[in-house]
Parts: sequence; structure tokens; C-alpha cells
Amino acid sequence: MTQSAQQSEICDDSLLKFEVPEIIHGHGALSKIGQCAKRLGGECVLVVTDPGIIEVGWLDETLKYLEKEDLKYVVYDNVVTNPRDFQVEEGVGLYLAKKCDVIVAVGGGSPIDTAKGIAILASNHGCISDYEGCNQVVHPIPPMVCAPTTAGTGADVTQFAVITNSQRKMKMTILSRAIMPDISLVDPLVLQTKSPELIAATGMDTFTHALEAYVSSLSWPLTDPHAIHSIELVAKHLVNAFRYRTIESLEGMSIASLEAGIAFSNAILGAVHALAHPVGGLYDIHHGIANSILLPAVVRENLEHSIEKYAQVTAAMGVDTSKMTSRQAAYRLLEEIENLTADLGLPAKFSSLGIGPDDIPLMAGLAQQDICMLTNPCRYELEEIEQLYREAL
Amino acid sequence: MTQSAQQSEICDDSLLKFEVPEIIHGHGALSKIGQCAKRLGGECVLVVTDPGIIEVGWLDETLKYLEKEDLKYVVYDNVVTNPRDFQVEEGVGLYLAKKCDVIVAVGGGSPIDTAKGIAILASNHGCISDYEGCNQVVHPIPPMVCAPTTAGTGADVTQFAVITNSQRKMKMTILSRAIMPDISLVDPLVLQTKSPELIAATGMDTFTHALEAYVSSLSWPLTDPHAIHSIELVAKHLVNAFRYRTIESLEGMSIASLEAGIAFSNAILGAVHALAHPVGGLYDIHHGIANSILLPAVVRENLEHSIEKYAQVTAAMGVDTSKMTSRQAAYRLLEEIENLTADLGLPAKFSSLGIGPDDIPLMAGLAQQDICMLTNPCRYELEEIEQLYREAL
Repeated sequence: MTQSAQQSEICDDSLLKFEVPEIIHGHGALSKIGQCAKRLGGECVLVVTDPGIIEVGWLDETLKYLEKEDLKYVVYDNVVTNPRDFQVEEGVGLYLAKKCDVIVAVGGGSPIDTAKGIAILASNHGCISDYEGCNQVVHPIPPMVCAPTTAGTGADVTQFAVITNSQRKMKMTILSRAIMPDISLVDPLVLQTKSPELIAATGMDTFTHALEAYVSSLSWPLTDPHAIHSIELVAKHLVNAFRYRTIESLEGMSIASLEAGIAFSNAILGAVHALAHPVGGLYDIHHGIANSILLPAVVRENLEHSIEKYAQVTAAMGVDTSKMTSRQAAYRLLEEIENLTADLGLPAKFSSLGIGPDDIPLMAGLAQQDICMLTNPCRYELEEIEQLYREAL
Repeated sequence: MTQSAQQSEICDDSLLKFEVPEIIHGHGALSKIGQCAKRLGGECVLVVTDPGIIEVGWLDETLKYLEKEDLKYVVYDNVVTNPRDFQVEEGVGLYLAKKCDVIVAVGGGSPIDTAKGIAILASNHGCISDYEGCNQVVHPIPPMVCAPTTAGTGADVTQFAVITNSQRKMKMTILSRAIMPDISLVDPLVLQTKSPELIAATGMDTFTHALEAYVSSLSWPLTDPHAIHSIELVAKHLVNAFRYRTIESLEGMSIASLEAGIAFSNAILGAVHALAHPVGGLYDIHHGIANSILLPAVVRENLEHSIEKYAQVTAAMGVDTSKMTSRQAAYRLLEEIENLTADLGLPAKFSSLGIGPDDIPLMAGLAQQDICMLTNPCRYELEEIEQLYREAL
């Protein structure tokens, strides 16, 4: 699919869209997972999760609630960060062999995206790479319930899935209304088992989602209130969640992640994500960390194209901007981002992760073709993208 | 169903819920109505509308788009303000006789609520009064697309329907997740045919939805951003829409109505609605006008129970509250509401509409039992409700 065809798929006839799954939020929301799977007509559940979730006990908890509703189940847990195409194929094999009829994803973005990939192939067949791009998924997917455990990805409420093509070593973005899950069960208690490092990385993922959705060329009055409120919540809760893991801060981050997800699923994203995807595909580093490192360079490049909105983001982060011009307030955001990532102990540059300049031309080419580039506040030439990568080295 | 059973249905186990239909917004959104009905699997459409909509041409426009998709259709247009139970029964008779399989509602709250009533009976059978109260609708309704034409009701995005019991002369509130429409097509161009009086009355309905949802005991961080943004939009656009019908102001009100609907469908309402329903049932006056007249008395009674939130509402209405205490800002809201209704030329009291004190005891009894009373920021004794009605006379 060409980029201009994708553009018209995303922005056809200037109508704006808003779609959100059913959301159930609160302490103990996970306990509804059996009832929800049953309400969607399920009798045999494919549970998609990963070894980390099993280790901290959330799979056992989930299975208990499925058993309580007399549901049969089978578990697919061979999921890694930046999930691969062959894992999706393994999972759909299991789904079909066991005659499953509903999918439950318990975990962060990786199990949820894997589950979406499995759901696509279960009803649309073929290879997952057939569905890369916009609205390539034609047939409705099986019923799907998500229980997100990271407060970062937002994948539980979005029409996005990102799967790594293991041969080409690149991330494929799948953007289709058809892959929105049916129900998201957001339980802040589940976040208590996250490590501080994971809280920091996924929190910066949430922040990037909210920020890119807010300045996106497809943002609109139904997405903006969620994006800006998500930024307020991140500014208020992320550092506390990282340092102290208080229930209040984890709850705040669970809502920040939800709202960022609602905003970006409908307003799409921007250049940070376009540039982060090739890094994740080639070097397999955590998506939230890739976003966090690329953020300052992209924001600096974008600022002049959306001064008012960036100024509003600075204010939402708690800075008193009343005596600043909009431009001053917008530029102040760079300092705020730097302080936030420093407080979270996140790497500021790719070089500290062993990434050098060799792959920049390859990554820049891929980034320029990424769907997320279409809704960035401004267009970049190839050399500008290369320069952004160099700034982040 | 007892009130305590309703209470537990609304607020079971302290989990909070958020559900929104698919929304398509923008100039020309109405033109998608055939495609949407078809996408939901429809072949024969029941179109529910009213004579006012037919007169201004929106039915013809709708039918053109249905024909373009080769859909068969039948029209039910015997709908009035405060729609009646027997109209729902007439409509479902037509739906079943013509073997329809999808419902399209074009109009304000009355056609949309009638369509919801028809949808309930089409798949759940019995009488519409069987479904009064919370979550009494068990079976999924037929696919349903709404094209709201009033920017007031929010019914296109809510799980509420209000139908008048013609024998008992009272409004029945039906609140069920199952009655949420599938798709709402929000086209600001459609609002251009509204009369100034209708803009004023439905605009105050929107304002009341947003305000009651914001201070509701079930409001939460996913509903609050929509409620407060809706209030900002009403303060900015309603008087301009009433006076000049500019496209910008109508567009602002179309979003205000949407966001108020999203907020109140998930956070429920309060005492203004509880008191307005009996007035509408007995005297058949426009719901937006009943809300508008009752608003000042109820807000005055509620203020002390939610000072901070009422203060935030005053600020959202554009008042500089930075030098006020929260209590001062909250009380200032009474003045703002008075100014707004005066600017819109709306009646300030029921007596100007020929309503006297005789039915107050009857209405107070009904209001106390109304579902919407459950989420008001405070509880009222029967005498307090009677006093509120007297203040509004």
C-alpha cells in the first residue's frame, strides 16, 4: 500500500472518528475476566500472556476467574518484548487446534499485540504481514478481552498492533478499526508487581502517546481532552509511581495510559513513533525507552509547527506559564522532558545502549514510510530524519 | 425494581465503566448513513424520525443515502416530543411486519429514544414498561445507527432512553448497557435547520447533562474531561448558536452535546433530571426547558456538597476565578446560569408555562424514586424536593 493510499485511508473525506472499547476500571476489575469472556459468547478461551506475568502470579489469578465461569482454556505464553510474526503464527495454530472462540490477553503491549495478531489470522487467514498498513483487516476478529498490566501501551483500547517481521528485522504497524478489543479490564492493583524500570519505560511510552496524539494533525475535540488529561496525570504520578509505587500513583498512571490510548487510537501518532519503530525492529530495545530517547529531538523539530499546543502541554505538566509567551512556554517543554527522563533514570542517548550511526540511513528510510509519520505536525525530508537520529545517538 | 436494587445495579462493586458507540463527526457525516447501516449487516432499514425533520428535508437526504447502498427501508415518523409507549409499540409493529434488520434514527432525543424503545421490543418482546429501571434489557438489540439533529440530547451516545407511560402520565427511564447505539453520525451541517428556540432549549439540556455528570457521585477521570470540556464549549458557543447560527458555533455545540452524552451515559445524572422527568410526563413541556428552569434551585441546594467541582465549572464557563475562594467561585455559578438562560430568552419559572402547585406532592414522590436521584451529590428528603419545585414555580 502506498503512503498516499494510507493517507487517504486515515483521513478520508475529513470526517473524524472516535471509537473506544468497553472499559471497566477499578480495584478488582481483573476478577471480571471470566464473566466478560462468557458475556462475549466464549466457551473456550485462548489466554495470551508472557513468562513475566506468569512469574508474578497474574496468570493463575486469571485462570481462577475463567474456571469460576466453567470456561475451558489454553495458554499461549511464548511472547517477548517486540513480539515476532512467528509467535503470532504459533498462537493462531493453538487457537485453531483447540477450537477456541474468545481471546483473553493478560500483560503489557507485547501479549496484547500478539493476541491482536492471533485474532487477525484466526478470522482473516494468511500471514500477519498481509495486514500491515491501514484497514487491511476485513473480517471481524474473534471476541477479545484485555487485562493490561503495564499502564503504558494503551494497546487494550487501540486499533493498533505492532508486530516485528523477524526476517526483515522491522516492525510492522497494523492499523485497523477491526482489531479494537471488545473489553478492557483496567485493574490498578495489577500494576503493583511492575519493576521501577518497567514503570519508567512504559510511563514514558504513555507520555509519548498523549503528546503525539495531542499535536497530531488528526487530533480533535474528542481526543484532546483525553490527551491533555493524560499528560497532567503523568506529570503528577509517574515519578511517584517509579520511586514509591503507591497505589494512588499507580492508579493515576493506569488512567493516564487509558486516556493516552483513547487519544492516540483516534488521533494517531507522530514522528517519535515513526522513528522508534525501526530502532525496536533492528535492536530489540524497549519501545518506551526508544520513544523517550527520541522525544527531545523530535519535539524540538516540531515545536514551531504547533506552538500553542506545545505551550498547553507545558502548562498541563504543572508549569505556571501565565507570564510566558506561547513560544517561551512551548520551548520550556524541552526542559521538562529532560527533567522527567532524568528523574526516571532513563538513558538520554542511544549510544549508551550500544547503538551506533551505521544503520541510520536504513532506519531513516523506514521511518519516513511509517504510518505514524502521516499525522506528525510537519513533514520531514530524509536528511532531517537522519539528523534527528544523529541527535539521539 | 427497588431503589436499592437499582443502586447496586448502577454502582456494583465500585468498578467504574466507560462505554461509547463508534462516533463519526464532521461536515457530511450524514452521507455515511447507508454505508453504516450496511456495514452492520442491514438489508431492510426501519427509519425512525419526526414530522419536523421531514419538513426540513433530512429524511429525503437520508433515504437517498440508503438507496445508494441498495437498502430497502420503511419509515416510522409518528414521533412527538416526550415520546409515548404506544408510539414505540406502533414502531415495533412496523419493524416486525416489514422484517427489518437494522434501525436508523434521524432526529433529536425523541426519535432516538423511540428508536431505542422499538429496538428493545424487537428483540426482547413484551411491553416497554417491562424495561424501566436499570439493566432490565437482557437480549442484544438490533444494529442501530443514529444521526442526531439537535445537539442537545446526547441520546445517540448513551445507554439511556426515556419513554412516557401514557396511562400513568409519567416518564419511564430505561438505563441499560444493551441499548447503546452502534454508530453515531454527528454532522454539524444538519443543525442549520434548527430554530433559535430549539437551539436554546436543547443547548440547556446539554449544559445540564454535562454539569450533572461532572458532579455525579459516579463521575471519574474518564468522564470528567468530557463533562468539563462540554461546559467550556457551551459557554463559548451556545449564545452565538442561538443568535447567529454560525457554523462554528453549531459545530461547537455538536461536540458539546456529544461530550455531555459520553459523560452522563457513564457517570449518570442528578436531581435536575430526577425533578424534570415528572414535569415532562405530566405537562408535556420540552425536556431542555424543564431542566433549565429547575437548574438554579437544584444547584443552590447541591453546592455545599461539591464546592470544588462547582468552582471548576464556573472557571470552565470563562470566569476568572483565580482571586476567588472555591466557595465564592462555586456560588458564582448561580449568577452565570441566570445570565445564560436570560441571554437565551428561556422562561425562568414554571408559572409562565401555566404550571401551578397542585401536582407538587405527586411530582416530588416520583422524583425521589427516579434513577437519576441516586447519583446526585447529596440525598433529599421529600419535603426538600417539594421545596425545590416551589422555588421553580
